[in-house]
Amino acid sequence: MAYELYYWDGIQGRGEFVRLALEEADAPYEDVARSPGGMQRMSRFLEGKEDQQMPFAPPFLKDGDLVISHVANILHHLGPRLDLAPDEEKGRTFVHGLQLTITDLVTEIHDTHHPLGVDDYYEDQKTEAKARSRAFLESRLPKFMGYFEKILSLNPAGPQHIYGDRLTYVDLSLFQLVEGLRYAFPKAMFSFESRIPLVRALHGTVKSRPNINRYLESDRRLPFNESGIFRHYPELDQPD
Amino acid sequence: MAYELYYWDGIQGRGEFVRLALEEADAPYEDVARSPGGMQRMSRFLEGKEDQQMPFAPPFLKDGDLVISHVANILHHLGPRLDLAPDEEKGRTFVHGLQLTITDLVTEIHDTHHPLGVDDYYEDQKTEAKARSRAFLESRLPKFMGYFEKILSLNPAGPQHIYGDRLTYVDLSLFQLVEGLRYAFPKAMFSFESRIPLVRALHGTVKSRPNINRYLESDRRLPFNESGIFRHYPELDQPD
Repeated sequence: MAYELYYWDGIQGRGEFVRLALEEADAPYEDVARSPGGMQRMSRFLEGKEDQQMPFAPPFLKDGDLVISHVANILHHLGPRLDLAPDEEKGRTFVHGLQLTITDLVTEIHDTHHPLGVDDYYEDQKTEAKARSRAFLESRLPKFMGYFEKILSLNPAGPQHIYGDRLTYVDLSLFQLVEGLRYAFPKAMFSFESRIPLVRALHGTVKSRPNINRYLESDRRLPFNESGIFRHYPELDQPD
Repeated sequence: MAYELYYWDGIQGRGEFVRLALEEADAPYEDVARSPGGMQRMSRFLEGKEDQQMPFAPPFLKDGDLVISHVANILHHLGPRLDLAPDEEKGRTFVHGLQLTITDLVTEIHDTHHPLGVDDYYEDQKTEAKARSRAFLESRLPKFMGYFEKILSLNPAGPQHIYGDRLTYVDLSLFQLVEGLRYAFPKAMFSFESRIPLVRALHGTVKSRPNINRYLESDRRLPFNESGIFRHYPELDQPD
């Protein structure tokens, strides 16, 4: 039975971290809200009309009678099923923790353009967005990405993967982070990436995987835009 | 063997969501950073000197040879062991999703006093904190707490618990949210709580549980203060 992924149409957004796992594994899935009538189907869940398993927000995944909310929860569930998680509990718990750190980073990236609140327009908080972006690029980005660089360097099996000697969903999410950050902050990333050579190498490895490459070339991969998490506002990037 | 909880001394913070579960279950645990020499022990993990299971930040929990990062991951691990999670996978996945929604809400609560970044002083972002707090109280608080109210109302076993007919760790976390929000925004909560009667009733039920009550009366429960997540700055509360 095909997985049902529920996420807003028109943006990569948080749903993209799930899509990359499904695409890498070549798993059958329906991207529901991009299908005819799909928005209505998604709304029924968000309005609590299906049952108590009502998600707070997309993305959520339906797998049989399970409705799974939040990216990290979805990937924790899919990981063993798609062969994208460690076999043993210790590894699965560890990579789930890494994915939750990625969740926190994604929130901080979103806050760079919406520091005063998600319900107000970017144009009404540009000054504050500049201050928040500066703090993000100077302090938070190095802290988070330096952490992932360190975790790669500490991997006893080698720095080719974030855990063990084969691909997990966290590797895919790190690829997406680099892609998104390059789109949003091209100047800052150009100078920053030399400090995270292992993360950069991992990005390249993931990008060249056949199923990922095929997905990126397909029209299922939407381009980044200024409605998603990663937004390119030149005024928020590192100055020349 | 006793669990080892690693979290900053001096504040309730995110560690408190874990403490409430351990205390309710009367589980043996060491609050490491509050023990002599404990800060050094915590630092070794944060510096990657123990092994690859290096956490990004406290809290983390050591259970045998597992090092578990992030509140929701810790509670997902502890839930079945402390009899504070549903027995079946469907329920465990659902309550994990609820806890991740609480994680997002906690981040937004923290952002009310630090909208421009965690590394700068509150005093340097007071104006922005007022704007962010206003948006939080008008829009985000009702959205999040209204969601939990709805989930309680949809529980087929009745609205006494967030899932099924007995206590889970999510109930304990909802108690802590109400406690913290009352501390941080007493005026706003005074008028808001009539809109979430089921959440309010749940708070009262949890508070009167013998082990929780004993914990709240002990000196292990630190008072709220202006270094934690929930901070009482009167200027950020609802105006008279």
